[in-house]
Amino acid sequence: MMKSLLIVAHGSRRESSNEEVRKLAEQIRSMQDLAVDEVTTAFLELAEPSIPAGLEACIQRGASEVLVFPYFLAAGRHVVEDIPAEIGPVQEKYPAVRVSIAPHLGMATELPALIAASTLQK
Amino acid sequence: MMKSLLIVAHGSRRESSNEEVRKLAEQIRSMQDLAVDEVTTAFLELAEPSIPAGLEACIQRGASEVLVFPYFLAAGRHVVEDIPAEIGPVQEKYPAVRVSIAPHLGMATELPALIAASTLQK
Repeated sequence: MMKSLLIVAHGSRRESSNEEVRKLAEQIRSMQDLAVDEVTTAFLELAEPSIPAGLEACIQRGASEVLVFPYFLAAGRHVVEDIPAEIGPVQEKYPAVRVSIAPHLGMATELPALIAASTLQK
Repeated sequence: MMKSLLIVAHGSRRESSNEEVRKLAEQIRSMQDLAVDEVTTAFLELAEPSIPAGLEACIQRGASEVLVFPYFLAAGRHVVEDIPAEIGPVQEKYPAVRVSIAPHLGMATELPALIAASTLQK
């Protein structure tokens, strides 16, 4: 059983912004005791791979379970409608694969403490 | 000496997205052992208050120091150019107030662990 984490970001015309997301995935990949077998990235627009392509690549590599993590701060249309719509057809094509969407980053209960900690750094 | 934390978000046409940011500020406000005396929010566009208005309000309430926290994931134009440009004139008007900009949220070293933790939740 192989489990993939697919971090989904908006994507930007600035390649450096997309690189920030890929670097984040790399940092997660290097962590100990990870609950997933691989960590990859995909983008809603303006960068590659697209969400369907990224998801399908996980499945081609053997993932039986994919957790999609929306790297978004707000529950806007992208999170509520667009990401599920991109995933839907791939899920239909591979009904045996369990694809689930994690709460978007802005929902993370650790965020308030993370921001509060930044006030100690000066 | 009064220190304010001003969380600056992009702002959205969806009022619920702006409310998410205000709720986040509320959660930080309710934390123990906070290193700031108040926690407020401002928006780059599409929501109120604007960054200059929010910053000036902190100063009017007596802040001698304001830490601006860019609630943004990527170091795009908004973070690199727009936020400093919004702050500049207010800083010039009140040279005795120490206004500083924290690294944007996407730079937080805690993010990889936070995302990795989400893989344990199912």
